[in-house]
Amino acid sequence: MCRWLAYVGNPQSLYDILYSSSHSVVMQSLASTEGAEPTNGDGFGVGWYSTGIAEPALYRTVEPAWHDKNMSDMSKHIQASTIFAHVRAASPTCGYVQQTNCHPFRYQNWLFMHNGVIRSFKLIKRDLMLRIDPALFKYIEGTTDSETFFYLALTFGLQEDPPAAMAKTVAFIDKVAREISGAANPIQMTVCVTDGMTNQMWAFRYSSEAQSGEGQSRSLYYSSDKAAILKLHPDSKASQFSDEARFVVSEPLGTIPGVWNKVPESSCVVVNGGSIEILPFEPLAQ
Amino acid sequence: MCRWLAYVGNPQSLYDILYSSSHSVVMQSLASTEGAEPTNGDGFGVGWYSTGIAEPALYRTVEPAWHDKNMSDMSKHIQASTIFAHVRAASPTCGYVQQTNCHPFRYQNWLFMHNGVIRSFKLIKRDLMLRIDPALFKYIEGTTDSETFFYLALTFGLQEDPPAAMAKTVAFIDKVAREISGAANPIQMTVCVTDGMTNQMWAFRYSSEAQSGEGQSRSLYYSSDKAAILKLHPDSKASQFSDEARFVVSEPLGTIPGVWNKVPESSCVVVNGGSIEILPFEPLAQ
Amino acid sequence: MCRWLAYVGNPQSLYDILYSSSHSVVMQSLASTEGAEPTNGDGFGVGWYSTGIAEPALYRTVEPAWHDKNMSDMSKHIQASTIFAHVRAASPTCGYVQQTNCHPFRYQNWLFMHNGVIRSFKLIKRDLMLRIDPALFKYIEGTTDSETFFYLALTFGLQEDPPAAMAKTVAFIDKVAREISGAANPIQMTVCVTDGMTNQMWAFRYSSEAQSGEGQSRSLYYSSDKAAILKLHPDSKASQFSDEARFVVSEPLGTIPGVWNKVPESSCVVVNGGSIEILPFEPLAQ
Amino acid sequence: MCRWLAYVGNPQSLYDILYSSSHSVVMQSLASTEGAEPTNGDGFGVGWYSTGIAEPALYRTVEPAWHDKNMSDMSKHIQASTIFAHVRAASPTCGYVQQTNCHPFRYQNWLFMHNGVIRSFKLIKRDLMLRIDPALFKYIEGTTDSETFFYLALTFGLQEDPPAAMAKTVAFIDKVAREISGAANPIQMTVCVTDGMTNQMWAFRYSSEAQSGEGQSRSLYYSSDKAAILKLHPDSKASQFSDEARFVVSEPLGTIPGVWNKVPESSCVVVNGGSIEILPFEPLAQ
Repeated sequence: MCRWLAYVGNPQSLYDILYSSSHSVVMQSLASTEGAEPTNGDGFGVGWYSTGIAEPALYRTVEPAWHDKNMSDMSKHIQASTIFAHVRAASPTCGYVQQTNCHPFRYQNWLFMHNGVIRSFKLIKRDLMLRIDPALFKYIEGTTDSETFFYLALTFGLQEDPPAAMAKTVAFIDKVAREISGAANPIQMTVCVTDGMTNQMWAFRYSSEAQSGEGQSRSLYYSSDKAAILKLHPDSKASQFSDEARFVVSEPLGTIPGVWNKVPESSCVVVNGGSIEILPFEPLAQ
Repeated sequence: MCRWLAYVGNPQSLYDILYSSSHSVVMQSLASTEGAEPTNGDGFGVGWYSTGIAEPALYRTVEPAWHDKNMSDMSKHIQASTIFAHVRAASPTCGYVQQTNCHPFRYQNWLFMHNGVIRSFKLIKRDLMLRIDPALFKYIEGTTDSETFFYLALTFGLQEDPPAAMAKTVAFIDKVAREISGAANPIQMTVCVTDGMTNQMWAFRYSSEAQSGEGQSRSLYYSSDKAAILKLHPDSKASQFSDEARFVVSEPLGTIPGVWNKVPESSCVVVNGGSIEILPFEPLAQ
Repeated sequence: MCRWLAYVGNPQSLYDILYSSSHSVVMQSLASTEGAEPTNGDGFGVGWYSTGIAEPALYRTVEPAWHDKNMSDMSKHIQASTIFAHVRAASPTCGYVQQTNCHPFRYQNWLFMHNGVIRSFKLIKRDLMLRIDPALFKYIEGTTDSETFFYLALTFGLQEDPPAAMAKTVAFIDKVAREISGAANPIQMTVCVTDGMTNQMWAFRYSSEAQSGEGQSRSLYYSSDKAAILKLHPDSKASQFSDEARFVVSEPLGTIPGVWNKVPESSCVVVNGGSIEILPFEPLAQ
Repeated sequence: MCRWLAYVGNPQSLYDILYSSSHSVVMQSLASTEGAEPTNGDGFGVGWYSTGIAEPALYRTVEPAWHDKNMSDMSKHIQASTIFAHVRAASPTCGYVQQTNCHPFRYQNWLFMHNGVIRSFKLIKRDLMLRIDPALFKYIEGTTDSETFFYLALTFGLQEDPPAAMAKTVAFIDKVAREISGAANPIQMTVCVTDGMTNQMWAFRYSSEAQSGEGQSRSLYYSSDKAAILKLHPDSKASQFSDEARFVVSEPLGTIPGVWNKVPESSCVVVNGGSIEILPFEPLAQ
């Protein structure tokens, strides 16, 4: 379910980031090669930050990304240095195909997007929602497991310490699901969050089935740094990017060797001004 | 906010019920004359019952009713003896324009539609939702005050005794709103519900401002019986209807005198096999 | 590009015809196995006939069939004895994803749907449109090659003699394309048409590349008659159909052997009150 | 039918131009005060130019402007020095509510938008389309009178001399309509075009009924220059604009006196680097 892309670096046109690669995230909406299913045609969302405006722009549509004319047209006219994009494959658990169920989700200056599922979500939705900070409750606009996940993470302190908040959130969801629904592998996820202000973003790869040895988490990759890529491919498109530019993506955007690095299971990728740090990620029960 | 129509009687084509009057509910989407605003272009919904199927059909679209081609085209091909239709004007309180926020709302064999508003809804939404039967919680698909209203009514026994359940629900919402948000006139409503099985439907007209003498409830009318109409207008279209056929509507569908009767403030209209009973309606605190 | 289904027989619910098979046309929108591509998510259309109304009902939406809630919900409430359904994969040649570009197309009591392409359509569109009967020109609502094809066929006498009109139309398109654009294999098609009134329908399988030995036409199948199916599979669902019931489909709706028969290259299938006649089809230059 | 806005001047956010006025063009979608009808809810389009890209960006949606979330959200993040916006009220003549029928229309670096109607369009559409330069024919994407108008104007030399091309186009349409359909007042229009490259734009106000003394053309206004406005209203928002900034609009965006000037009947407004020239406009038969 779903594929996503996150970019931080020097300003690029949305077109270059979303469309111009041979296996771009928009292409992945029609023909994903590593996703849980090939078609991600149940919604398309793009969020980006502009200088001087804390709240990111948000464009979300239920049209499949592959035939959306508005973004493909406007994308050449919009530049940003932090860009999130997501193509959705809805499951019965994820709920209706509607704008408010499209990723990324936004709260103030934060963006959040998710690939995966909270299993038995309908059975535990009420219990999860009750745990959300009452002051945040009114900002929930859709019906997905992913948006509930985001508001739980905000409740557990995402704005102060993203890795810690995510660890607590995952532990909480896991606990509720096991207690109430008896779901065997409650959580499957890659998640990406950013505050858009510090050239930082945090990406997570985790799943209950990977923990239990019964399966794998959704695929996740980060890009090599510019110098390494140019050394291998002196004539590549890498030259348009700054030294600090980095991607984190569900699937490689192309097939050039040496560019895309697999994120290991149960990890948090911290991108910070061009540096990449891979931290172990595990749920933190409270 | 919003206009609606309910019909119970002998089978009619959806076209005849929704489109063929001079001031049809579809016309009211573009040019309502008695609504809180003239334009009701934020969603269109139709529900109807078919012989032998308990669950009614539901067609809901975010397209303004006046330019929806699918229903205008299909309507000549579909007949039903119980028909609900609703055109929506969304307010910031009512939330996003999306299919799941369009009326009527459905639970099993029940339909519910609402014209009006729960004031300060965002502030009290969490408290209202907590009161909904946990077993029903997972069926909520949208984000409106109206859908929350419906699930509260189900929680308070709508399926057993519609007028009593509505009286309890209104009292509950009124109490929560006054306590938490301090809203002066929390409830403005006309509501219609049916179970689709007994030629019965229940319509309600009520508002806090009418109770307090500070305003009026949304407009509501019921149609005269066939014999009375034919006596006044022997050549009218009334002859296509059975003796038991009745409409309850936000606005008269035409201007012929003697056909449309205003529902008084704070009333419940019980339509039952052609008979119309007007009961007083008031909140029932528990 | 595209997959379609046509049914003529005793009245069936749209749900049974469109959704209830293991490899239904709606499933084919997400995962076609014999189409030019697996995803047919660029539009969904259903046309059907009702007793006493010559003009068929038409429901068309740009939503992918697999997540369209309105038809999946209404389909249990609507019965018809002649049903056309189509899921679209738009190509750059086919044009925008919009309601008016969704199949089936309708003119008076006729329905038409197409799977395939007129190659170099943009280059020859003007010349094709000039040949359309000027009295019909104003009924064209969309921008596809398929709709132009339909109006040319009407111009060449579709309402009088469908096979002859199609033979002339294909010859005309082929000639114009070769002369103006130099396209090597101008036409790829399966097409289905009906007048909805005589239990007749006509399906065509043809392509320039099959003619020239350079490729195959789009896949096409017709169903065996009820007696033959019940002989093989006494307990099958076939018992709900009348002796006259027949399907013509882009792909078999299931995997039971003996039910689905491949339509040969360059053929016209004439379905007439349960009988199936396979005629050779070839362009008829004038 | 329809309302529009055009802006040329120093770069402004789309938000400031489209949303921030008391009677903004988005407000006019719901409650126009001078239009042929109050509601313009059948489509919303925005076009704008970015430095270094000849082809303007185009965003068009069938959602009513008043509830479109994407543009209202993105508009704070996008700046442009030439901006066109249009809210549509479709008539049966204008055709389907679909993206390709939303204004502005674009050809290469040109934008065109229209408020009004070509009467009897369906009857004369084929004759009008035959006159379009065959090389341009394939670029037509929708079905409206307005888009046909645009492609005729391009055929008559819009890119070389906009006022002359418009004069020839109007004369041609007028002649064809009178000859073929006998329509009494074939043309009603305000039109705006720009090439986006020279700080120039051309707006036209004309109608057959104004010519014949039987009615008026659609309303049209241009803004006063900055100095004049600041003299009257020293504290106004005018200070954020450059001396060259000018609006041409269907309706004034606010009620401050001295800002909005009515364009006389049968005129062409030439905006050129802040100067406004009002030329007489009349059809030029050939």
